[in-house]
Amino acid sequence: MKRAEYPEAIRDLIAQLKRMPGVGPRSAERIALWMVSARNSRAGEIAEAITTAQEHIRSCAACGFYTNEEECAMCTDPARPAEVLCVVEQATDILPLERSGAFHGRYHALGGRISPLDHVGPEDLRISPLMEKVRSGEIHEVILALGADVEGEATAHYLADLLKEFPVHVTRIAQGLPAGGGLEHADELTLSRALSGRVKL
Amino acid sequence: MKRAEYPEAIRDLIAQLKRMPGVGPRSAERIALWMVSARNSRAGEIAEAITTAQEHIRSCAACGFYTNEEECAMCTDPARPAEVLCVVEQATDILPLERSGAFHGRYHALGGRISPLDHVGPEDLRISPLMEKVRSGEIHEVILALGADVEGEATAHYLADLLKEFPVHVTRIAQGLPAGGGLEHADELTLSRALSGRVKL
Repeated sequence: MKRAEYPEAIRDLIAQLKRMPGVGPRSAERIALWMVSARNSRAGEIAEAITTAQEHIRSCAACGFYTNEEECAMCTDPARPAEVLCVVEQATDILPLERSGAFHGRYHALGGRISPLDHVGPEDLRISPLMEKVRSGEIHEVILALGADVEGEATAHYLADLLKEFPVHVTRIAQGLPAGGGLEHADELTLSRALSGRVKL
Repeated sequence: MKRAEYPEAIRDLIAQLKRMPGVGPRSAERIALWMVSARNSRAGEIAEAITTAQEHIRSCAACGFYTNEEECAMCTDPARPAEVLCVVEQATDILPLERSGAFHGRYHALGGRISPLDHVGPEDLRISPLMEKVRSGEIHEVILALGADVEGEATAHYLADLLKEFPVHVTRIAQGLPAGGGLEHADELTLSRALSGRVKL
């Protein structure tokens, strides 16, 4: 007698679902069984949505955000001023900033950050298109909205250095206490940065 | 200026992924962006695996487990004795039992349990195929491996009542302390059942 297993098609499906970020073996099994057990077309619709997104979505040629055109809705919006450019590491960083409602200019995603440990150098990032935008003269301020970790720091300093020769203001988003966070939950580095970044009231 | 959003294909994909069990809006967004950002064919392979599983997997005509044949590998395994039949609520309950290594007979999934609140009555479950199997005379024991909740109890009593007129032993899996669980973590009902189900050493 053989110990029973799922049929191959289900085992394959579980293996594929497990590759998705944040989905472990348990959730993959649960989702796979839901997919084959669902008596309607839900799983088919999911497969279709994946295929459609894969076929139609590409990176905006100007900023790197997701689009199904040559350039994204933000880069082609005439109401969005091009004077202030917000530089982020990843295209995924753009919507969180956009949802904050605090920025109304254009974005530029580098596609990563300088990280020698991961073999990512400046030449792997979208830095020359950034320089071209700055060189065009339209931009007054470049806001570096990079991570508050070592790689973010390194990338910020590298870019600030490159941008020195252009007549643009280079700023960096503030570091400090997260909203709603008490001092007792903040680590020492956060507190030290919050202190040194203190503003006059 | 319009606040930026993801292109429609990504929003559709997020909406579809959110329907999967255990996947919230946050994970759906993360998975969707991973799918369109992945520079290889992983997402395509996932879509393909979903479609393949949906096309090929059906319920075993005999026990209700997943199969791509008329009957599953367990029901057609001559080495698996048909004398002991293990009745479970869902097809998903079969592999956990199988993995325990403690049961070597055949299974029968009811496809649910009696639950008036969910409008599920005996007529909605695969009870007549179960009765037919028992009527064939081949079965000596029917093990009810149903949940330890109200619906599981109700279903067990209903089946026990129906099976009374046949010359089969009807048993139910034990209820008590879960393995590795101390008494301090068990609720009162579990302890009460563990007490009344005590066995001689």
